[in-house]
Amino acid sequence: MKRINFAIGVHNHQPVGNFDHVFEEAYQKAYLPFLKVHEKYPQIKLAQHYTGILFEWIEKQHPEFIPRLRKMVVRGQVEMMTGGFYEPILITIPDEDKLGQIQALSKYVKQKTSYHATGIWLAERVWEPDLPGPLNRAGIQYSVIDDAHFKYAGLREPQLLGYYITEHQGALLKIFPISEKLRYSMPFRPPEDTIEYLRSIASEDGARLAVFADDGEKFGVWPHTYEQCYENGWLENFFRLLVENADWINIITFSEALQQLPPIGRVYLPTASYREMMEWAMPAQTIHKYEDFDKWLKDNHMPAENRVFVRGGFWRNFLAKYPESNHLHKRMLRGSARLQKLMKGNSDRSLQKARNHVYAAQCNCPYWHGVFGGLYLPNLRFPIYNNLIQADVVMDKIERTANEKKNGWVHAGSMDFDSDAYEELIVESDRMNLFFAPQSGGALFELDYKPRAINLLDTMTRREEGYHRKLRQAIADKDHPAAAVEVASIHDIVVMKEDNLDQYLHFDWYRRSSLIDHFLHPYVTLDAFQKAEYGEQGDFVNQPYQVGTAKKGRAMVVSLKRDGHVWIGDRFVPIRMRKDVTIHPKKDVIEVQYTIVNLDNREAELWFGSESAFALMAGDAPDRYYFSKQAKIKDTRLASLGTLENIQHIGLCDEWLGLKIDLEWDKPAGLWRFPIETVSMSEAGFERVYQCSILMPHWRITLKANKEWKTNLRFLFGKC
Amino acid sequence: MKRINFAIGVHNHQPVGNFDHVFEEAYQKAYLPFLKVHEKYPQIKLAQHYTGILFEWIEKQHPEFIPRLRKMVVRGQVEMMTGGFYEPILITIPDEDKLGQIQALSKYVKQKTSYHATGIWLAERVWEPDLPGPLNRAGIQYSVIDDAHFKYAGLREPQLLGYYITEHQGALLKIFPISEKLRYSMPFRPPEDTIEYLRSIASEDGARLAVFADDGEKFGVWPHTYEQCYENGWLENFFRLLVENADWINIITFSEALQQLPPIGRVYLPTASYREMMEWAMPAQTIHKYEDFDKWLKDNHMPAENRVFVRGGFWRNFLAKYPESNHLHKRMLRGSARLQKLMKGNSDRSLQKARNHVYAAQCNCPYWHGVFGGLYLPNLRFPIYNNLIQADVVMDKIERTANEKKNGWVHAGSMDFDSDAYEELIVESDRMNLFFAPQSGGALFELDYKPRAINLLDTMTRREEGYHRKLRQAIADKDHPAAAVEVASIHDIVVMKEDNLDQYLHFDWYRRSSLIDHFLHPYVTLDAFQKAEYGEQGDFVNQPYQVGTAKKGRAMVVSLKRDGHVWIGDRFVPIRMRKDVTIHPKKDVIEVQYTIVNLDNREAELWFGSESAFALMAGDAPDRYYFSKQAKIKDTRLASLGTLENIQHIGLCDEWLGLKIDLEWDKPAGLWRFPIETVSMSEAGFERVYQCSILMPHWRITLKANKEWKTNLRFLFGKC
Repeated sequence: MKRINFAIGVHNHQPVGNFDHVFEEAYQKAYLPFLKVHEKYPQIKLAQHYTGILFEWIEKQHPEFIPRLRKMVVRGQVEMMTGGFYEPILITIPDEDKLGQIQALSKYVKQKTSYHATGIWLAERVWEPDLPGPLNRAGIQYSVIDDAHFKYAGLREPQLLGYYITEHQGALLKIFPISEKLRYSMPFRPPEDTIEYLRSIASEDGARLAVFADDGEKFGVWPHTYEQCYENGWLENFFRLLVENADWINIITFSEALQQLPPIGRVYLPTASYREMMEWAMPAQTIHKYEDFDKWLKDNHMPAENRVFVRGGFWRNFLAKYPESNHLHKRMLRGSARLQKLMKGNSDRSLQKARNHVYAAQCNCPYWHGVFGGLYLPNLRFPIYNNLIQADVVMDKIERTANEKKNGWVHAGSMDFDSDAYEELIVESDRMNLFFAPQSGGALFELDYKPRAINLLDTMTRREEGYHRKLRQAIADKDHPAAAVEVASIHDIVVMKEDNLDQYLHFDWYRRSSLIDHFLHPYVTLDAFQKAEYGEQGDFVNQPYQVGTAKKGRAMVVSLKRDGHVWIGDRFVPIRMRKDVTIHPKKDVIEVQYTIVNLDNREAELWFGSESAFALMAGDAPDRYYFSKQAKIKDTRLASLGTLENIQHIGLCDEWLGLKIDLEWDKPAGLWRFPIETVSMSEAGFERVYQCSILMPHWRITLKANKEWKTNLRFLFGKC
Repeated sequence: MKRINFAIGVHNHQPVGNFDHVFEEAYQKAYLPFLKVHEKYPQIKLAQHYTGILFEWIEKQHPEFIPRLRKMVVRGQVEMMTGGFYEPILITIPDEDKLGQIQALSKYVKQKTSYHATGIWLAERVWEPDLPGPLNRAGIQYSVIDDAHFKYAGLREPQLLGYYITEHQGALLKIFPISEKLRYSMPFRPPEDTIEYLRSIASEDGARLAVFADDGEKFGVWPHTYEQCYENGWLENFFRLLVENADWINIITFSEALQQLPPIGRVYLPTASYREMMEWAMPAQTIHKYEDFDKWLKDNHMPAENRVFVRGGFWRNFLAKYPESNHLHKRMLRGSARLQKLMKGNSDRSLQKARNHVYAAQCNCPYWHGVFGGLYLPNLRFPIYNNLIQADVVMDKIERTANEKKNGWVHAGSMDFDSDAYEELIVESDRMNLFFAPQSGGALFELDYKPRAINLLDTMTRREEGYHRKLRQAIADKDHPAAAVEVASIHDIVVMKEDNLDQYLHFDWYRRSSLIDHFLHPYVTLDAFQKAEYGEQGDFVNQPYQVGTAKKGRAMVVSLKRDGHVWIGDRFVPIRMRKDVTIHPKKDVIEVQYTIVNLDNREAELWFGSESAFALMAGDAPDRYYFSKQAKIKDTRLASLGTLENIQHIGLCDEWLGLKIDLEWDKPAGLWRFPIETVSMSEAGFERVYQCSILMPHWRITLKANKEWKTNLRFLFGKC
């Protein structure tokens, strides 16, 4: 009789910052019902991975779940896997943090389930070939990885029924290839199909091993799967069939497989993740090329086995594709490095708290974007900055002298913060962190307000995405369905959460941030400006500024200066721009003095605007709104668009955060305000996401030859 | 007028262990004439990389070359690049060694040319994304890498005219994409073609940069290129044309480009090398699939731009494809680790010498195989083991006590030496190192003879290669040309260095080594045996043995034991095999006692043979030969094949090494001897390469039920 070994792994995860109701729904629709069915089948052994984030949530909200799980672990029915506590993509974080994150989850798992986990769930299965080094140091013996990775190394389907050894300079790791076939059949096709597939690969010697491992959310949370798994009884039927066929299907855990089966051989996996992610990591235009090639291959009936030779990019290029992702990443590294340095020979216990914040800021979900929200979701980005700023506050306290604590402090330093080969300027006070990009418009691109631990410039810039083409086509076709069609094709569905989303497809030519200096063509309208389809007459927006810093009393003054030009008619008029930004210790205010000098020997008519962005996470929440001391604002939602004339103040209030921001200036100005909204893919379809509000006071200035014009802006932060 | 920047880089290298005449030919045909032409064109600036190996050879053989080069460096005509001194593939060696190798070459370059090199030539352009970390630590600012790597990251042709930044966790590196177009046109197409190509990509702003960088051997050593470059004057014409077009072609060094041009952007390169190497790294069968797919794409007229989505494997899989490569690699890591440990807090100056040996053993060429000999060439593998054993000898001296030095020493330890998840046993004495594989036949797979610093088991096993299909086809076609056809298609030529090479295509089912225990079918012939197409009746060859060690006086006894089976007719007879290997300190002898026990209750007729391999590097050299005290040997070449009957001794003599090996045993036996010869690709075509001589004394034994049979073998090593 032909027999086969079969190992099952389930990975359960919710990102830091996900809404409580999302956790709860996943618990009620997937984690809990899965456990309930599983409890009934003691013969079914499988591996479970819960991220630390999810574990802590369950422990708090449904503490009764843990002992039930533990019971199954103790009786050998569940093998626990470990991972990074906050589910970081391991290759993105320093080796010390890899170790710390894994140790943290392993310790937690041991405490709660008494299992000593030696298998690791690799977040998003992002692999680089030196990973066995740090994993080995963390006591890891095995991992489970997509079979695609193995095929990229040259192995073929029949060679993937077992496990392999890989290593980095002698540090060993055993790796199980996850069957893509099983990933697509479970739970989407009838349980009998999986049994039949297992039968087709069973062998006389019974030495082969089939591996399924995938997201636990597939069993209840993904569209239609709750109905499939529990109402239609897929999971119960599947387990029952496995038990009925126990004479030839040998259910086995990964650890048992390591004990009972020899490795098939040696393999080295290239930089890879699952196939779709490798596509997403490429630039939008290249994704089009790739999709076109894919279609060409299908049209020409490519033999399926060649699919493995066709490949996209790899994870790290999300950092190149999205400056915001790179920004998150380098900000996280900065926090981690500061902490590492501080922890050397310092036993202050609050550093443990800071470390936990840094680890929490390593949760992978907002660092990238595919068909799930990720980077485009403000509620996932928010906790990254929030945790990093909280870590900073803890470290500030440790690093400061008594005198500094009393009088406050402010410090400025230049460094290539984001690894772009240009130096940025970072000003830190005990109230705020300000990150300036002298190389690019002298803009302020991160503004951390420490009392609320928020980066007020945590916004996305609008960019063309590979899938926008699909959106436009679907709208052009007019006959797109209003709802998802098939459970299995989650990656291909074109569903829109609202009509006419193509109207929001505007793309920015510079990164959205603050203190961006515009000179507009006389006929520019707010509509054209907000669509980024207008005439920019100056060369200041994203061009280099000189930068200097000076102490003024206890305050720090950052001076940003550029001798540039503005097109006036057919003249390219030399204009000097200077902005002096003053940051006080212990004060929640930023003062900006603008000085514009006409370096020409003729009079110049200028239309100058200073653009700033405020990212308060929700455009339509009633507790977040605009207000003005001087004007009546019709629509006060942060996602609203409007103009005001002849004012000197605008305010933003976020009652949820308890934060009020006043923006005021000394020369009456017009004001444009509009939201930046992105159109991105999510599990539920294409959706519009509010990223930030743009405010631009603007002045029409007539400047005589060699004359200067000045205005003072102030940003004030306080309680709402 | 449209203008363009143009940067040129030339990489010159010869592997450790290459024949002196090969160095000399390359010098006379490429390095020297290139310099001579270059000297005449002071306007032409370019980057030069010489590996340390080549530099030292030149310094010794043609010391007048160095000051000429230095002169060109000093007048700014040549920019020197650095690299690993012995041209290791950096990703294969420990980070400490990366640093040391680079520092060693940089120091040498500085001394000889007074240039402080900050650009690195990356051996074989093998890239992994964490490389910027160690490169940054070594003070490297830039490298040049195939444009293919960049395309794999999603960039397209027009985006590759300049340089990019990449980084690993904040450690920055600037990378120039090498134009594949230029690699294929220089020097193979008329110089005008390159000028025309440059014209086609020149732009009004003159900000673009075209990069050529490739092997210096292309300019004189590769087939037909000496004629092309110097007799036909390609190089001179090319330089002249560049000078004539200096108004729009701006010759620039890499360092100048970094000063004068901004980076185009950010990119992260996946695990990659040049396209061909990624194919070679795959298993033979997968190469066939890949080639078939390639043909399918061509037949279906795939749009060329899609080529970048089609990819093979990556470098590390050479370690999976060739156990011999993995062996070299882990042996090198062992040497490096031993050294690192010893250097901590030990200032013995001889450690510098040991370190140099370890570095020399990291030269990449024998670690892999494509269309150039590499791993298949004994003269390239020899210096790896030679250097590692010399390093061991130095370290032995440091580690041993006075008493051990006087009386000799021997030590045994088990460890997973080759990272295959099984433990090997390593026995070290002051005379020899013996590496046993209990898991696989209890075989002896490395035998280092320290007085001559040679691994006598440095052989290849015969395996099917992807290109053997091509060889068979060409022979089947009968009309294959006798010589190369076209200069440009070096990768596609089917040239054979001798006729009927397909007759040598036999493939081994076990790894060739020593003390391999065979039980043969009564009708097996030497011919069938040497072709590995015979009936093996036992299950001892590559199956697990138990292993134990014991001291016996000052000697070490390794006992290898297996209860296995031998097919006799239709019976699978239980047989116990035991081999006790005795290693003495201070003695150049290995004693092996075989004990074979018939565990059955019936008499057994057995034909037992003990196979051993001796790799003395040359099968046809007159100074390396067989001899026997008891029999007249007809053909004494090590590559000869033959049988002897009823003898108790055979000897091998290597006058070149001054090494004699006697193999003797106490029970008269038949002896089979034959060479292992591989058929591999080389620059000059398919060639047969002698790898080792196999010796197998064999006995026909009638063993009564529960009786045992014994014989004693001795391997003696001495002067020839």
